[in-house]
Amino acid sequence: MTVSRVLNKRPDVAPQTRERVERMIAQSGFVPARAANARREGRHGLIDLVVPALDTGYSLEIARGVEAALEPTGYRLVLSCTYSSSRDPAKQERTWLARLSQGKTDGAILVLYADQSRRLEALRRRHIPFVIVDPVGDLGPDVPSVGATNWAGARAATEYLLSLGHRRVGFIGGPPSLLCAEERLSGYRSALEAAGTRVTPELVRPGNFMDDVGYKQTLALMELAEPPTAIFAGSDSQALGAYGALRQLGKCVPDDVSVVGFDDTLVAPLVTPALTTVRQPLAEMGRFAVRNLLRVIEGRPLSSMRVQLATTLIIRGSCAPPGQGS
Amino acid sequence: MTVSRVLNKRPDVAPQTRERVERMIAQSGFVPARAANARREGRHGLIDLVVPALDTGYSLEIARGVEAALEPTGYRLVLSCTYSSSRDPAKQERTWLARLSQGKTDGAILVLYADQSRRLEALRRRHIPFVIVDPVGDLGPDVPSVGATNWAGARAATEYLLSLGHRRVGFIGGPPSLLCAEERLSGYRSALEAAGTRVTPELVRPGNFMDDVGYKQTLALMELAEPPTAIFAGSDSQALGAYGALRQLGKCVPDDVSVVGFDDTLVAPLVTPALTTVRQPLAEMGRFAVRNLLRVIEGRPLSSMRVQLATTLIIRGSCAPPGQGS
Repeated sequence: MTVSRVLNKRPDVAPQTRERVERMIAQSGFVPARAANARREGRHGLIDLVVPALDTGYSLEIARGVEAALEPTGYRLVLSCTYSSSRDPAKQERTWLARLSQGKTDGAILVLYADQSRRLEALRRRHIPFVIVDPVGDLGPDVPSVGATNWAGARAATEYLLSLGHRRVGFIGGPPSLLCAEERLSGYRSALEAAGTRVTPELVRPGNFMDDVGYKQTLALMELAEPPTAIFAGSDSQALGAYGALRQLGKCVPDDVSVVGFDDTLVAPLVTPALTTVRQPLAEMGRFAVRNLLRVIEGRPLSSMRVQLATTLIIRGSCAPPGQGS
Repeated sequence: MTVSRVLNKRPDVAPQTRERVERMIAQSGFVPARAANARREGRHGLIDLVVPALDTGYSLEIARGVEAALEPTGYRLVLSCTYSSSRDPAKQERTWLARLSQGKTDGAILVLYADQSRRLEALRRRHIPFVIVDPVGDLGPDVPSVGATNWAGARAATEYLLSLGHRRVGFIGGPPSLLCAEERLSGYRSALEAAGTRVTPELVRPGNFMDDVGYKQTLALMELAEPPTAIFAGSDSQALGAYGALRQLGKCVPDDVSVVGFDDTLVAPLVTPALTTVRQPLAEMGRFAVRNLLRVIEGRPLSSMRVQLATTLIIRGSCAPPGQGS
């Protein structure tokens, strides 16, 4: 019964006896359940990636980068989606975070949709390392995150439209809770103000990054007494929605209305006219998120908690000076 | 030392004593490593999905279907890719299968690229249930698989081109080792033969399903003394490669050359002209693969080991009668 007392951590066992019994059990291949799990994790670790949905080029590109970076490490990639038309994204996110923090994971890369600061507490309490891509809200200084230079990208795109002669530039934005959406709006405003052009509230349309928002907001913008001559969409998906709305109105891109997107997803060069857009290095952001997550897991310091990778304006065929149409 | 003898499965222990010690250890929370793993698997099971790459619409759509079907089950989705320009796909597949069969998984859905019949033996030996999407080679009657009616889809597409008046129809195919590629070629031949049209070997071009193959084979087809007036590509990616090659040659789709794809991925309706293509229900195939895999895991019988879901010809703007161009 000495063994029973050791196993149940009873105090009435001599230290040497306890040690001998524990060593014997360890050598036999029997291990406490917790240690068995830890050992497995070392051998075939799991990294979770959570994205809103796989049907946007944005999530897909990030997933590609994460997959490519994890491949040589031996970690396996666990993929979850939180957004679909048939699901409540906030509920999905809660379900997922609960599952993650109860389950087995070595760390997580999170592209979240709804405000999540409280939910991240659940991960912190369970000591699950994580990195955020495109943060939502103010997460505080201790949360590692990776994003793109949204402000600079939006400013460059707006400056380009201004340089073509546009003065009424519509802006279709993302959810105001997303830092990247706020930064893009701010870059747009900044370019207009620097050029001495008034920021017109009726031309600024927040929403989400999906194509139906691009479609609806373009219809609304074109119904204004003085419609814009150019539309800067906060995502390529929105820009394709804008293409659809303009086609329906019999307007030609770029002769009647110029369109700029944001992301440079796989479809941008394939559509007609090919989409001028702000390139986010999404796959690179995914790779960087993996790199920083592995550092956190290994307990190594990060050179910077918040990293922004550079955006680039990619000029294709969807912009022209205003007043080119018949 | 009785405990030591029990743990090491030595024969010199009385049965009752062995039983008492084993029960005591079990009650204490100590468990053999193997049992600890099994218990975890029940709580937060893992299903592996292996696809060639995430940069084809084909894999993406299947992944969407698998993710959607797994979401309500509580299983987590582990994603792996075997194909990228910088990796040897056959080596990648071996690495992945080795990792999978050593690691922790409840079952796998495999979209494989290279011939894999011997590698599946490794999964079988370890009693890992699996379902194949779009089988490679002859896997035998005991391998559950999900595909589409490739033969019927290819026949319908070729019949459509014949009905427009085309008599020289180029065919760009996939790897001959893939059952779906073989079925599509056979459907193409069958339609031509049924219409009394000769199958011309120079018009049949096998390759793989990537866009660069579509591009190169289209250039080769257009260099023939008597080039085709229509091209039936084995995938949407190939069809987009064909678009690029024809644009480069100054040929207009569909006025000079008609193009039909296969898959109906997300980009098909977005390109100009919108691509006429054979729709494979890829997401539905992914969902079906999950359904059958869960049945295999639960030990329930499958109504059919090999399932083919219906394809549909989606007519858009990339086909016209021959001789419309200037």
